[in-house]
This record gives sequence, structure tokens and C-alpha cells, in this order.
Amino acid sequence: MKNMQEFEYIKWLRSQISRSKEVLVGLGDDAAILKSHDRTLLTVDMLMDGVHFNLSKTSPELIGRKALAVNLSDIAAMAGEPIAALVSFAVPRKNGSFIAKKIFTGIKNLADIYNVSIIGGDTNSWNGPLVISITVCGKVTNRREVLRSGAKPGDSIFVTGMLGGSILGKHLSFKPRVKEALAIHKQCKLHSMIDLSDGLISDLRHILEESHCGAVLDLSRIPISAAAKRMIKTHASHKFISKDLIHALTDGEDFELCFTLPQKDSEKLKKVATRLKLKVTMIGEIMAKKGLYFRNKNSELIPFPKHLTGYIHKLS
Amino acid sequence: MKNMQEFEYIKWLRSQISRSKEVLVGLGDDAAILKSHDRTLLTVDMLMDGVHFNLSKTSPELIGRKALAVNLSDIAAMAGEPIAALVSFAVPRKNGSFIAKKIFTGIKNLADIYNVSIIGGDTNSWNGPLVISITVCGKVTNRREVLRSGAKPGDSIFVTGMLGGSILGKHLSFKPRVKEALAIHKQCKLHSMIDLSDGLISDLRHILEESHCGAVLDLSRIPISAAAKRMIKTHASHKFISKDLIHALTDGEDFELCFTLPQKDSEKLKKVATRLKLKVTMIGEIMAKKGLYFRNKNSELIPFPKHLTGYIHKLS
Repeated sequence: MKNMQEFEYIKWLRSQISRSKEVLVGLGDDAAILKSHDRTLLTVDMLMDGVHFNLSKTSPELIGRKALAVNLSDIAAMAGEPIAALVSFAVPRKNGSFIAKKIFTGIKNLADIYNVSIIGGDTNSWNGPLVISITVCGKVTNRREVLRSGAKPGDSIFVTGMLGGSILGKHLSFKPRVKEALAIHKQCKLHSMIDLSDGLISDLRHILEESHCGAVLDLSRIPISAAAKRMIKTHASHKFISKDLIHALTDGEDFELCFTLPQKDSEKLKKVATRLKLKVTMIGEIMAKKGLYFRNKNSELIPFPKHLTGYIHKLS
Repeated sequence: MKNMQEFEYIKWLRSQISRSKEVLVGLGDDAAILKSHDRTLLTVDMLMDGVHFNLSKTSPELIGRKALAVNLSDIAAMAGEPIAALVSFAVPRKNGSFIAKKIFTGIKNLADIYNVSIIGGDTNSWNGPLVISITVCGKVTNRREVLRSGAKPGDSIFVTGMLGGSILGKHLSFKPRVKEALAIHKQCKLHSMIDLSDGLISDLRHILEESHCGAVLDLSRIPISAAAKRMIKTHASHKFISKDLIHALTDGEDFELCFTLPQKDSEKLKKVATRLKLKVTMIGEIMAKKGLYFRNKNSELIPFPKHLTGYIHKLS
């Protein structure tokens, strides 16, 4: 889409852009410039047609929305505030300019809600399928960031929302938990946090690895979404774990938060959650012994079977 | 490339990474964290197989190198110092892990030369062609940034290096002019600057638009590369402009710098260029009258014909 078509698109793009006081130079130079702030958060995600979305079945606006939302979810997982986004994408030549505008509109609508300025971009067309990469830049509050590496034995493990089955729709429409993470971070001593992109078990293992500890989950407490219950036909069963629970434990792209905090902060968390009207569930406990476990009926620690790792679902 | 293959790759990736003192948190959390600094530069470019490179003809290392280099060139064009890069790419499934490692190696080797830390990434495999998007983050020196918008009537216009025909090889191997831009910025009063990605005429027009002025080029002074001379068969001729000159004026991806400064700074520039062993050529002058012109034999101002706009070359 270089030459006239691109220039026309860029002109349109620039007419769409509002920018916050954080942005000194936005679109239209060789690079954008952000104001100085304490600690810069940066994250990137690439979404491809046929893998993370299906252009033939989903509106370009929703695809654009998702491409930004997954990055906002990463900023939320650091307890950060998003500031700005850089958007690069390649659209199929056929209807390229039309698709590009729709995608951008989807990005822009979500960006406005989260006060994110779009400060850079690279728009191309090609003979390949649609691919979008967004980089989001954020900042931390005066309580600093929350990493994956701070979980401590004795911490309670929580998740927001309901888990599993996001492929039935939530993976396109989920609400990045930015405000929620900031509110919890303000009131509680968050030790570690991650967003659920690969599936609870897989993502929780990242916290355990980075924090050099283990965890035991209470299977009876995992919040199973209605969507996961509708998907029970697609998984092999397991002798201890029901099919809908397998979905809740392993389905990717829930984009809820999983975090740990000292048990004594549970009451504070409850108050924040009530105020936010946010479902927050305590699902287990961090322990010094490495590995990820659940308990059987005799209260014995059973390691989660290896094949129960999360995955990015493949769209048909 | 999610699940085990991706995790193996990420492990390999993390083993390759060195990071500078600017980086507080690098790869391995939901987002990276950079130290506070005055003004953050951000730029992104996406490169696609069949458009910006050809995977069947070019080594993945060179492709990775180019994907980073084009972004470093953007930081150079702001007279900035690059700090960190976020790399997202989608590789074809066949040999995906092998290609990904080679690409990363190409990126890494160039990043090390420029003290750029790789702080984030998203690696995917799919059934589509190879696509790479890199975001580079930089900072400004105490002389601040140089924008496209600062050109003033009377400014002399300069370019570095030789122009045209980069498709014959330079588009893969060019040296981003980071050090050169910083050195010139330190000694001279740079009014405006851009890197040549779409072709001299096209890129210079960006400076003119942003600076609300015009320019006249001295066609006899345009530094025509040897590659442009080898390519003279591919362009239609023009009654005033030779074919090799058309290449120098319009070929994309030279990644040289085009900048303007007050005539009185020309001597200082000459000294810097000599010290850097950098070819710098004065090619024209900024003027208040809008538009981009050259002079015919009678010294009359002739506007450049509209069809002589730059373009990203399409690879066969």
C-alpha cells in the first residue's frame, strides 16, 4: 500500500488520532516521542489470520480490538498504566485499504477507552494473510510494577473472572483488566501477577518458575465459565479432572489475571473486588516445594499431568 | 510455535540475550521495563517476505539484520540513540524453529554493535509467509531530537552516501547512520532530518510538507551510486533527467540521511564528515516557495514531474 494509496491512508489515519499530554511527537515523523516518566513498560504481540483470528468469520474491527487488547492485558499484568501504541500490519491486497481502516477503527475505539494514544505505525499490503503486530508502552504507578517473580510460599493464588472456552467468543471481546489490576495493586500487597494467555496451568507455571517455588490448586474452586461447560466434548477425559475443568485449566486466551498475595491481604482484596463488581476467586496456595499439584480425595498432593499444558487454540 | 517448541526457543533466546544498564526487566515477564530517561523515541517497521525481502534468495540472518536496521535508521533520523528492541515475527511452519533462530541471530549481531538490548518478543509459526515487525525504543541526547518540521528557507540540503539501486544489495547490508547523525547533530545546527526509505524525492517532500516550505535541487550534484548506474535499463527516460539519476532520486531503501542546516554550518559539517570518513553532499536549498524543483539550462525552476515519486521496490 505504498505510494498514493498509503499516503491517503496515512492522511486519514492522522485525522483520526487524538493524543494525550504524554505524547510530544505522534504519527508523522521518523519516530514518535513520549515525555519522560519513571520506568517505561513495553510489550508486543503479533496476531495472525488463521491462528489468533479468522478474517473470513470475524469483523476487522474486532480483530483490531483484540490486537490491542492482548497488549493492554500484558500491561495490566505488570500493574501498569498503558500510554501509547505502535501498530504495524500487513493486509491482503484485496480490499486492503478498506480492511486497514476497519482494523484501525477497532484499535482506536478500544484505545480511546484506555487513554492510549496511537503514536506510530507501519501499514503494508501483500499477497499473504492479514497479520497485525502492536507494541504498547506504559508506565508504572508510585507502587511500582508487579513481576512474575515475587510469589512467596504461603501466598494465596487468585484469578479474576471465569475460565475456559474463550474461543467461543471471549477471546475477541474480553476486557483487559487494567483498571482492576491498578485498583488491587493500590490496596493489596501483590507479590506476583500474570495474565492468562496460554491457559491457567501454563501461565501459573511461569510464576512458579520465576519465583522458584511450587503451588497446590484446589480443583473445587476453579471458576469454570459457561463457555467451558459448552465445550466439554472436545477434550479427552482424565481420571481426576472433569472435561469442563480441563478447559478452565488449559484453554488459552482467557486474558484474566492470576496473582498471588499474602493471605492476610485477602480481606482487603475482597473489598476491592466488591467495589469493582469483579469476581475474584482464591484457587490455591504457593508453597516452597516445587511443582504444580492438586489434592486427591485423600488429600495427597498429585502433580498435574504433563499433557495438561495450555496452548493457543488453533482456529478452524 | 506455541507449547514445547516455543518454550525451547524462548529458553534459547533468553540464553542469547545480554542487556544494558538501561534495562530493568528484559525478556521473560509480561512486559519489559526500561529505566527512566528524558524523552522516549519509539518507531516500528514491518517487513514481509516477497515485499521487503525474499526468503528463498536471502539468508534469514540478513533478513533479521535488515528488520532491525530499518528501525535504527529511523532513530538515526531523529538524531537519537537506540536503546532496546521488541521483535515479533511469524515464521512458516516448515523449518520454523531453524529460521527463527537464524533471524534472531541476524538481529542480535546488529543489535550488539549498536548497544541495543532485545527486551521483548513474540514468536509464532503459521502457514503464511515470513513476516517480521520490530519496534525500537531510543532516547535523545542533551541536544534533543531533530524533526522533519524544522527546515527553514535558506537551509542547505544534504544527503549522506550514494543514492539509488539499493535493491542490488544495499537494502540488506546498509549501515544505519546512527553514529553519523549524532556526530553531525553535536557539531551543527540540524534544522530537519529524515532517513531515505521511500526515495529522495518522496522523503524530501515529507520535510517540505512538515516544514511548510519548498526546495530546489541541483541535479548535477546528486550522488548517483554505482548500483543505480547498473540499473539504467529499468526506468523510462525523462527529457531532463537521465535514467541513472531517476534511480538516485526515486529508488527506495537507501537508508541514507537527508538533512538541512544553515549554510553557515557547512564548514563545520565538512569537518565532521572528514573525521567520520563520511560522504556528505550538498544537493540543494530550502526556499519559501512551496514545491520541489530543479533548474533547467536557463536556470528556470521546473517542478519535478508527479510520476517521479519514490516507491518501495517490489522484489521479483
